[in-house]
Amino acid sequence: MNISDLKNSIDPVKTGQELHSLIGKLYPICRSITGSGLRQTLDILKHNIPLQIHEVPSGTKVFDWVVPKEWNINDAYIKDSAGEKVVDFKKSNLHILNYSMPINKTVNLQELREHLFTLPDHPDWVPYKTSYYKENWGFCLSHKQFLNLTDANYNVFIDAKLEDGSLSYGELYLEGREKAEILISCHACHPSLANDNLSGVLVASLLAERLSTISHRYSYRFLFIPGTIGAITWLAINEEKTVNIKHGLVLSGVGDRGNVTYKKSRLGNAQIDHAAYHVMKHSADKCDIIDFYPYGYDERQYCSPGFNLPVGCFSRTPYGKYPEYHTSADNLGFVAPECLSDSFIKIISIFEVLEENFNYLNLHPKCEPQLGRRGLYTATGPDEMAMLWVLNLSDGNNTLLDIAEKAGLKFETVLRAAKILCENNLLKKAIV
Amino acid sequence: MNISDLKNSIDPVKTGQELHSLIGKLYPICRSITGSGLRQTLDILKHNIPLQIHEVPSGTKVFDWVVPKEWNINDAYIKDSAGEKVVDFKKSNLHILNYSMPINKTVNLQELREHLFTLPDHPDWVPYKTSYYKENWGFCLSHKQFLNLTDANYNVFIDAKLEDGSLSYGELYLEGREKAEILISCHACHPSLANDNLSGVLVASLLAERLSTISHRYSYRFLFIPGTIGAITWLAINEEKTVNIKHGLVLSGVGDRGNVTYKKSRLGNAQIDHAAYHVMKHSADKCDIIDFYPYGYDERQYCSPGFNLPVGCFSRTPYGKYPEYHTSADNLGFVAPECLSDSFIKIISIFEVLEENFNYLNLHPKCEPQLGRRGLYTATGPDEMAMLWVLNLSDGNNTLLDIAEKAGLKFETVLRAAKILCENNLLKKAIV
Amino acid sequence: MNISDLKNSIDPVKTGQELHSLIGKLYPICRSITGSGLRQTLDILKHNIPLQIHEVPSGTKVFDWVVPKEWNINDAYIKDSAGEKVVDFKKSNLHILNYSMPINKTVNLQELREHLFTLPDHPDWVPYKTSYYKENWGFCLSHKQFLNLTDANYNVFIDAKLEDGSLSYGELYLEGREKAEILISCHACHPSLANDNLSGVLVASLLAERLSTISHRYSYRFLFIPGTIGAITWLAINEEKTVNIKHGLVLSGVGDRGNVTYKKSRLGNAQIDHAAYHVMKHSADKCDIIDFYPYGYDERQYCSPGFNLPVGCFSRTPYGKYPEYHTSADNLGFVAPECLSDSFIKIISIFEVLEENFNYLNLHPKCEPQLGRRGLYTATGPDEMAMLWVLNLSDGNNTLLDIAEKAGLKFETVLRAAKILCENNLLKKAIV
Repeated sequence: MNISDLKNSIDPVKTGQELHSLIGKLYPICRSITGSGLRQTLDILKHNIPLQIHEVPSGTKVFDWVVPKEWNINDAYIKDSAGEKVVDFKKSNLHILNYSMPINKTVNLQELREHLFTLPDHPDWVPYKTSYYKENWGFCLSHKQFLNLTDANYNVFIDAKLEDGSLSYGELYLEGREKAEILISCHACHPSLANDNLSGVLVASLLAERLSTISHRYSYRFLFIPGTIGAITWLAINEEKTVNIKHGLVLSGVGDRGNVTYKKSRLGNAQIDHAAYHVMKHSADKCDIIDFYPYGYDERQYCSPGFNLPVGCFSRTPYGKYPEYHTSADNLGFVAPECLSDSFIKIISIFEVLEENFNYLNLHPKCEPQLGRRGLYTATGPDEMAMLWVLNLSDGNNTLLDIAEKAGLKFETVLRAAKILCENNLLKKAIV
Repeated sequence: MNISDLKNSIDPVKTGQELHSLIGKLYPICRSITGSGLRQTLDILKHNIPLQIHEVPSGTKVFDWVVPKEWNINDAYIKDSAGEKVVDFKKSNLHILNYSMPINKTVNLQELREHLFTLPDHPDWVPYKTSYYKENWGFCLSHKQFLNLTDANYNVFIDAKLEDGSLSYGELYLEGREKAEILISCHACHPSLANDNLSGVLVASLLAERLSTISHRYSYRFLFIPGTIGAITWLAINEEKTVNIKHGLVLSGVGDRGNVTYKKSRLGNAQIDHAAYHVMKHSADKCDIIDFYPYGYDERQYCSPGFNLPVGCFSRTPYGKYPEYHTSADNLGFVAPECLSDSFIKIISIFEVLEENFNYLNLHPKCEPQLGRRGLYTATGPDEMAMLWVLNLSDGNNTLLDIAEKAGLKFETVLRAAKILCENNLLKKAIV
Repeated sequence: MNISDLKNSIDPVKTGQELHSLIGKLYPICRSITGSGLRQTLDILKHNIPLQIHEVPSGTKVFDWVVPKEWNINDAYIKDSAGEKVVDFKKSNLHILNYSMPINKTVNLQELREHLFTLPDHPDWVPYKTSYYKENWGFCLSHKQFLNLTDANYNVFIDAKLEDGSLSYGELYLEGREKAEILISCHACHPSLANDNLSGVLVASLLAERLSTISHRYSYRFLFIPGTIGAITWLAINEEKTVNIKHGLVLSGVGDRGNVTYKKSRLGNAQIDHAAYHVMKHSADKCDIIDFYPYGYDERQYCSPGFNLPVGCFSRTPYGKYPEYHTSADNLGFVAPECLSDSFIKIISIFEVLEENFNYLNLHPKCEPQLGRRGLYTATGPDEMAMLWVLNLSDGNNTLLDIAEKAGLKFETVLRAAKILCENNLLKKAIV
């Protein structure tokens, strides 16, 4: 079975449901860039894919950064003067400022307010906030809750630990016929947020699961890492492996109901950029292609000038461009099964282009070969034109993707034509 | 006399009438890709131009193809049960499926219908159909005629021969001051069709006639060949001559009332492409420029990857884009004298650009030379600007066509300026 | 003080008033391409800047041209039969055809008319006409005046001298840290015309005055020359100096109320072209960028193919595109103080880009450096993005201007980010 067979065998409805239910499983866990929530998440992914889990000790120097202490939390709440919990981590892990220091004291309302985060424009939503690299404590709550805090004093309690430990990440390498690799990277450090980025984690996981069942040209490397520090850590300790990365995608926010957005690699004209553009353009749905900019997700690290890897970012509504972003409204209802499966299929389609994008040589380059004699004019119209395009442009200078783009035809149409021509000894794969 | 003089001496009305009347002369002949109709056509062209006629034996291998047997037809009809001819080749040579095998038998209506071709959407028109490479027999008729066929049985009679013979084509070489050639190719294999491609045949013939009366830089090679197999045959037996082909045009469908269309060579930026673009852009008429695609006329063969010649296709309404295409409606009324002469003049204008497109050198490249002292500021406005453009850009990197394009001026204006500057020793032709 | 400090210290209102009043001082003088009016103008400029005045003798060969005789005029008039002066040079120096030969005779109306120039479409305006290279005499007058000339005879009197002398021009060289030069050229040969080109002369003079007070990277060379023959003369006798000219602007018509127009150098993609484009694009005002054409002002000479210098032309309404051009309506009211200072500021902004457009190197090219640790995430939004862009693109292949263009940010924002990053040892200037 090859990738085209895999693509054609996908049941969109089932795939969407499967992805959505897996997100539901991971949703309640309180993840951070280190600690037991992240480790538990990777362990659950291991049920489906043979993930290798790495631990990098706190204090390890990774380029300009240092792996931070490990953070773990048991409980946290704010109690009013009546002893009632008015904000409770057990009800939502978003209530805690991620990486908060432990605390247990009574504070007056004024002091408390300096440690509270709300969204006045969305009074029912709880924001998601972090303080990884600056020691602090705090709570996130809805603005409605905030307005109800009128007591003079409150007891704040955070049972958390910030200690030497390690940063965990998961890695899976699927060996292909070639050493050249496709990198798929997603961050797995967010607590109860469904689109950002459990959607990416589970689409990546399902991609790994399905690709492991087929014969593939490229080797595939999947990274499930904490954002920023995870990508920097992996790059720092695996620098020599980056030479094999020929294409790559950061997956993120792939389940919301917005259009698909592809953000180009810093190179801007890498093969992954052309492949993604082609799949988007020939999709029945509106898709957006945007240029690289040095912000967003971990493409920032992969596309830093010292690496400049051909890695783009695949998402639906882009980074930060929806109000639910980094709030409690990015919940299970915010991700749609049909959008998850649509993202999944489009990514497989991009990989199909990469896998099959070879150079072919026309074996009868002088004048057209006589297709009629071989019964090839009985093919339907688009296939006949595709055969003529493939023959005309297979002079060693054009890949199949180049031909599809110049002909204005779908890659799969051109691929089918190339295969028919090969079977009829009119075309052969160029030795590279 | 040079090509500019020739261009300026054309009488559009007379030229249009002359071309239309010549088409009328060739229209009744039943041509095919081989046989006496084609041969007779070439003989008539010989009245005006010293065409050399070549015969290539049936069975000759030409690249992936073989020269087919020669087809000749005397008569063909369908008789109804009353013995009346309901379809008669003598009334229109389009009635016969071109390359039909001989037959003489009575068939029932059902069997007959499998061999009949009509155009239900245009019930008065007779289609033009061929079966060159698959042995078959058949008749083409109007859909109205078809609906009248209600007898149980019909007598079908085709007095044709398909035997070893030869493929004929005409060639004319006009030697120029340079060995570099301009190729003009047209197919001459269609029976009673006026626009496709008698218009091309006769415009090519008149081009040859007129160019033979002037002094020209390029050598010109005219080919009057059967479509596809003729181009393949010529290329196969004249491969070594193709190195001299520096520019070329396939002429086809140049007499209908649509806009002129220029289809670029596969190279896309050959000098012929730029020259045609320039002439079209500066024409008062709307013209279309389209990219190469591997379908259409014999540019398919000249632009196959093993040759990749700088050959474009000049037509009016493009290949297959008008309903009359390959039907009896492509008759003498479908081609207009004024459109024939317009095509003729535009092609001559393209050739004028090619003939005069040299590199010049400004002999006073540092600051402007003093035009006033030489009386050159008395020239009218556009010519003064043209002189300044020619002086400014004649640094060895720009041809006159490049200068015309950058200046937004007509080639002939820039050419006139260059000639005035040469006369005043301010400019000289670069030695290439 | 550097150029950014200079730019930020400009008071637009004061600057506009200062420029307008200086124009008023030079406005009454009768200038020409040689003679005492031009010399007097340069002497007045010397009050503010240490201009070096050069004299090139009549008869000197300069490329294809010869420095003409020197022209000086004392008085000129037309008297009617009643002895009344109906046209009087003392009322406006535009009344004389510039470079008129001396004359003193009575002519009949018919002969007189052959020497009169008017603007029938603007009956109150006096045109400005010259006859530098063809000996002639003549008067310019309003069309209203012309229609009143009904006497049979008139006395014409021109007390002028055309004798061997010299062509004068002013030059100022401000040495910078680098030998590479920015050329600023303006023509100073027009009599009472305010926009063309006293506006250019005085903006250039103020640029020289202000640039002499700061530390600058580039050397600046200012030329105050007669149009055409002055540029040709300077180029002919200073050919070896042109190798240092890395950027340049011809200044002309910089005081009218139209939009700013930048006409690109012949190279079309010189750094001055990019810098001017950038400043125009980020201006709050509509600005026009036009391609080079071989007409207009002295860019014709600097951009002749034998020099091809990176010199653009900065003006407001372009050369010849306003009805007041070369008429008495190009008076002091036609130039606006706020437009003069706007031109001045935009030119300084262009020079700021050139002065600060270095290549930088990211000292932490692998992954992002940790900005938060250095307190650099406290910067406001646009500066944070600018820092990320500068870090991401400072790989040795992009200048700051390239980065500003790719980021869609103002040059000054990117420059500020680069300086902050340098202070934090995250970036350093590349050694070229």
